[in-house]
Amino acid sequence: MLSQLRRIVQDVAQEPVLNNALAGLVTSIKQALETECCSVYLADYEQQHFMLMASDGLNPDAIGQVAIGFSEGLIGWVGQREEPINLAKAQLHPRFKVTPEVSEDHFSAFLGCPIIHHRKVLGVLTIQQAVDRIFNEDEESFLVTLAAQLASVLANAEMRQAASESSATQIQTGHLKGLPGAPGIAMGHAHILEPANDFNAISVKRSDNPDKELAHFYRAVKITKAEFNRLAERMAGHLPPDALAIFDVYHQLLDAASLGTEIEQQIADGWCAKSALKRVVEKFARKFDDMDDSYLRERGTDIRDLGQRVLNNLLDTEKRKIKLPDDVILVADNVTATMLAEIPREKLMAIVSLKGSVNSHAAIMARALDIPAVMGVDELPLRQWQGQYLIVDGYQGNVLLSPVAAICAEYRRLINEDAAINARYLEEVHLPSQSLCGVKFDLMVNSGLAVELETADLEHTDGVGLYRTEFPFIMRSRFPTEQEQTALYRKILESSPNKPVIMRTLDVGGDKALPYFNIEEENPFLGWRGIRLTLDHPEIFLVQIRAMLRANLALDNLHILLPMISDLAEVDESLRLIKQACFEVSDELSIALPRPKVGVMIEVPSIMYQLPELAQKVDFCSVGTNDLTQYLLAVDRNNPRVAGLYDAMHPAVLRALYTLAQQAKGLQFPISVCGELAADPAGVLLLAAMGYRYFSMNSSNLAKIKWLLRRIELSELELLLPEVLACSSAKLVRLHVQRFLEQKQSLNQLRA
Amino acid sequence: MLSQLRRIVQDVAQEPVLNNALAGLVTSIKQALETECCSVYLADYEQQHFMLMASDGLNPDAIGQVAIGFSEGLIGWVGQREEPINLAKAQLHPRFKVTPEVSEDHFSAFLGCPIIHHRKVLGVLTIQQAVDRIFNEDEESFLVTLAAQLASVLANAEMRQAASESSATQIQTGHLKGLPGAPGIAMGHAHILEPANDFNAISVKRSDNPDKELAHFYRAVKITKAEFNRLAERMAGHLPPDALAIFDVYHQLLDAASLGTEIEQQIADGWCAKSALKRVVEKFARKFDDMDDSYLRERGTDIRDLGQRVLNNLLDTEKRKIKLPDDVILVADNVTATMLAEIPREKLMAIVSLKGSVNSHAAIMARALDIPAVMGVDELPLRQWQGQYLIVDGYQGNVLLSPVAAICAEYRRLINEDAAINARYLEEVHLPSQSLCGVKFDLMVNSGLAVELETADLEHTDGVGLYRTEFPFIMRSRFPTEQEQTALYRKILESSPNKPVIMRTLDVGGDKALPYFNIEEENPFLGWRGIRLTLDHPEIFLVQIRAMLRANLALDNLHILLPMISDLAEVDESLRLIKQACFEVSDELSIALPRPKVGVMIEVPSIMYQLPELAQKVDFCSVGTNDLTQYLLAVDRNNPRVAGLYDAMHPAVLRALYTLAQQAKGLQFPISVCGELAADPAGVLLLAAMGYRYFSMNSSNLAKIKWLLRRIELSELELLLPEVLACSSAKLVRLHVQRFLEQKQSLNQLRA
Repeated sequence: MLSQLRRIVQDVAQEPVLNNALAGLVTSIKQALETECCSVYLADYEQQHFMLMASDGLNPDAIGQVAIGFSEGLIGWVGQREEPINLAKAQLHPRFKVTPEVSEDHFSAFLGCPIIHHRKVLGVLTIQQAVDRIFNEDEESFLVTLAAQLASVLANAEMRQAASESSATQIQTGHLKGLPGAPGIAMGHAHILEPANDFNAISVKRSDNPDKELAHFYRAVKITKAEFNRLAERMAGHLPPDALAIFDVYHQLLDAASLGTEIEQQIADGWCAKSALKRVVEKFARKFDDMDDSYLRERGTDIRDLGQRVLNNLLDTEKRKIKLPDDVILVADNVTATMLAEIPREKLMAIVSLKGSVNSHAAIMARALDIPAVMGVDELPLRQWQGQYLIVDGYQGNVLLSPVAAICAEYRRLINEDAAINARYLEEVHLPSQSLCGVKFDLMVNSGLAVELETADLEHTDGVGLYRTEFPFIMRSRFPTEQEQTALYRKILESSPNKPVIMRTLDVGGDKALPYFNIEEENPFLGWRGIRLTLDHPEIFLVQIRAMLRANLALDNLHILLPMISDLAEVDESLRLIKQACFEVSDELSIALPRPKVGVMIEVPSIMYQLPELAQKVDFCSVGTNDLTQYLLAVDRNNPRVAGLYDAMHPAVLRALYTLAQQAKGLQFPISVCGELAADPAGVLLLAAMGYRYFSMNSSNLAKIKWLLRRIELSELELLLPEVLACSSAKLVRLHVQRFLEQKQSLNQLRA
Repeated sequence: MLSQLRRIVQDVAQEPVLNNALAGLVTSIKQALETECCSVYLADYEQQHFMLMASDGLNPDAIGQVAIGFSEGLIGWVGQREEPINLAKAQLHPRFKVTPEVSEDHFSAFLGCPIIHHRKVLGVLTIQQAVDRIFNEDEESFLVTLAAQLASVLANAEMRQAASESSATQIQTGHLKGLPGAPGIAMGHAHILEPANDFNAISVKRSDNPDKELAHFYRAVKITKAEFNRLAERMAGHLPPDALAIFDVYHQLLDAASLGTEIEQQIADGWCAKSALKRVVEKFARKFDDMDDSYLRERGTDIRDLGQRVLNNLLDTEKRKIKLPDDVILVADNVTATMLAEIPREKLMAIVSLKGSVNSHAAIMARALDIPAVMGVDELPLRQWQGQYLIVDGYQGNVLLSPVAAICAEYRRLINEDAAINARYLEEVHLPSQSLCGVKFDLMVNSGLAVELETADLEHTDGVGLYRTEFPFIMRSRFPTEQEQTALYRKILESSPNKPVIMRTLDVGGDKALPYFNIEEENPFLGWRGIRLTLDHPEIFLVQIRAMLRANLALDNLHILLPMISDLAEVDESLRLIKQACFEVSDELSIALPRPKVGVMIEVPSIMYQLPELAQKVDFCSVGTNDLTQYLLAVDRNNPRVAGLYDAMHPAVLRALYTLAQQAKGLQFPISVCGELAADPAGVLLLAAMGYRYFSMNSSNLAKIKWLLRRIELSELELLLPEVLACSSAKLVRLHVQRFLEQKQSLNQLRA
């Protein structure tokens, strides 16, 4: 039965036209259950009724015509109760309503089952029969299981249908949901980059002149490499040198040792150059597609992109010179780093990738270039988008298609207002971050690429509160050496002389994988990540610490931060290794290096219960509110099914943060906050009220947070805090903070 | 370079003989880096030295002969420092030691890199060159990255090597590590079940008589179905009816609608019956193999098993009648439920499966049959095991191969002693669970199949503290109907009349997937599981609650427990649906049903911060220490890389449990513990000291825990508690409790 179910659901999923899918569905169910009638009704929340969408057994003329109110008849009742209803004599039931148009007088047995997706009733599935009988357990269970499986398929199908209906009228308006890839909002015209020569269109052919084919291939590779060099040069001014390592990967793939040799072999075996290319590229790309790890799956895209370029050059295709608009929103099935590089930086407003995730190279580069990006938008026919006007919201992961003028105006107003307000925030960025009542705050920046590119104005910050060291590791095809790391860290430490720079040791694993150090796990967030991995590989940890220490020479502003600490033994072991590295480097340089200050990330809940012991071992701690929230609520916020449960304003999170602040105060243990909560005005207010004084955030938020802190009185916040801590939900917390902000005249601008 | 690295590592992984692998390794590295010498040394911790295992460049006669002490020379120094060492003139270094046997006088440049796996130095990899120069960054980085990737490959290779060396002497002794599949210890003779007719051995052939082939096929299917019926009957006495649903799955797969049709089609296309079978089975099985979800991957095994049986019948193979020993330990590459059923229950002592996991049907059935099982033991040549004597430890996931007499005697003594001690525990099982000082405890049982099968003596328990409702859902190919659920729950409630039976609502997701409701997530433990899933599908939740309420009629011992609650809104929504179900069932039966008591699982950390609000909403709570520990420590205990960090005795967990107990007491909010900590004597002592009075556990532990509680004075424990809560590590906690137990004369037996 399971396979029958699967087949029926698959058929629905694969049929592009919703009405056809539903018509097929009811016929399949009717056959599978050998019943006399099967129908499906879909809910219309605007009209507050269920529309008969398909039936095999009821009057065909009623399809698309008969609507039953949400509180009417048996169909309405199934929807209201959100449960299957199984009746031997439907017509005797008090809720039965005569609907002459459907011609169901001869049916007696009735089984109705709701189709529910994420708590929302999408429709009702019914089977009916002439005899008086309760449908048996197998029939009921079949329909319930089918309805549960259908729910998500139908939810998607309805979305697709809506999009294709609007495309029929030539103007697509609508709202598409993806994943936030890089923050920001932008507007512009869609520029679709489609692979010019599709591999699918190539039929595999043999050749009797392998030497000629080989020469063709070499020439195409040479041109392709030259193209990459050109692209890399174009990007060089806009990206830190580390990000350019992406292009090295392509070069390496083309080298004889990897794809190259295989393709040569295929040509030697008698395939023509383009067939050899197709065979090898598809074989390799498929290998990557099958990988569990999302980072590696993304590499399949790189290989296809590469193959595409070689193919283009092989076919000597004239590059169609499309005139680019001045406000390009780059849209592609799979936006790759090379596509990105082809658009002049000043024209590129935003990126929309139908496939891919926050781990794609394109998303990483978009963040580095400060361009909004939305990834993983549902599959829609690409060509229809060409030239359309789009609004891309990289904060929320939303794309608005051909928005109506009013919405455009509204967004433009928002963007302008945002810019104007930001300008006003910036007016005060050089002033001290001090509250009206004279309490001083330290505002530091989070960074992960090159501080000087990410932060326009380091002078007015109190240092780097979190430097993530993952980027140089992720962007390479091997571990960076001690010298490479030293050079990079030196630049970071030099960017903030005389101010602390808190460098976090390598925090890979979880959702950040290294291409050359694959980890496959069922639950990577609860797995081998952060300090767990580096303590198991002390050679990696030691080299990193040694590089930090060398970089710190004569600067002395290095602080070391340890990620994912869940146990005190991990702290002891880390300190032992740091001491060893200190001793070694001191010995090698014949200088007595002081041990830099060491801190611990508070992100795993367990360590919150061991703060007194921790305070004796290390110099400071820093709360990572993002991961801490994920673990406290047991929610992976990248998972759309449960992301709605993630909220750093959840009362449990706030109560935990308050307990932490109080404990740290009692222990005189310096504590900072470097998660996103510290960059959120409402969050900062509450954190300040709890007693936090050190905040680290993305530099784009710093001016606003400083502006806010300069307008508050701690005494007012301390009245707000108990109210907020007593709230039973994040929603109530936000209401309280909002009311507080509304009462403060001086904070008007913040609400705009 | 990445691909070069990958190829080198793969070559090592695929070569079965360690020495050959290492010889290949050094040659590949030497070529890749164009250097003059590459060598590898492996650590021998018994001898405390590094042995030169392979070299391309040093004197070949020295290989396997030259050993360098852990504190000797440059090799020892690399091992001690756990870091790469890069020298232009090795011979000038103070740690350089002249080793004439290796003939390295002409080398000057030296780069040594440690190979580290899980913090343990496995060996040292070196490259050398005649010129005086520091190896450059690329070379150093290549070697470091390679060493990191090699570490796990080498760790496995060493293990395989050890096993195959011992097999060469015809007697395998040794210790194999797998995953605990079902608890218990057993000894017996290995009985290897190998597929009699291997699909791999079948060459695909065509036939020109499809009718004949079709008749062959039908006959084989008919025989196979009959075999399944016979097997199902044999199991019927030993398994609850629900577990027998496994056999229905096979029947369904054989039905025309699933595999059957495809095979018929292949035969119609001209393939002979066995070729058609092979093609279809392999195609389907491969589909399952590719699935991310471990439950579904296991289904690939079911399909292969099924295909195997049909193939056997197709080939009319005489079943070789192997005489079974009286103490069978069933060993197979993939133990399937049908293999299990073929061994008479009284002869079957334990199960060892080379593949599979705790989610395999075989593991589930082993637990139901109370037979120890170890799953996922590393791949070793199967045939060598036939008839060997094994000890299977299903608690730890260990298998001892041909253990020496002394070890056998020791284990036999342990098993006997265990039985004797258990008998003494059982002598008191009918007495009250009350401490010496008169404090009363409620001891309840955890159950997941059929209470009467799992618990010999329900009379002397205080009810069912946790009934997991997943099993009937997992064992079917569709959602069970309300009637099916009602009948099952009725039996459970009837098994403990007048005592509470706490039924947990459906808790699938995480590591428990439904075959007909596939969920693919990156982090299933932080995903759509438990109440999150059922609240999104109220039709499933409502049917289950309605079934519970109907089953509870005139018994009134039902308590409902909600899993994975992380937010109070989830409690409100659940209560609303329970109220609705109560109202509906009352209405249908025309009886005013009272709302049963409702409780919440404390397993997501956030809910611990909202206990006061929770106490106002529901009647009780129950701490699931297993999941709570996983979330507090951010550790997936099924992940071998980090499982060592999982410990319910972690100070953070104990401090959290203590805070919970105190809060619950202040709120007069009934709180029980149903995780594994409640079944651990040390754990129960601490929980009792904290104030917990309700414990639920597997019935096999109940007598022991009762015996223990009857011998304690709460005042003594309350002295122990502050000591334990002040400990900084789980290790220290255990030491304290152990010392306490040692001082108590009356608890001697427990330590045995």
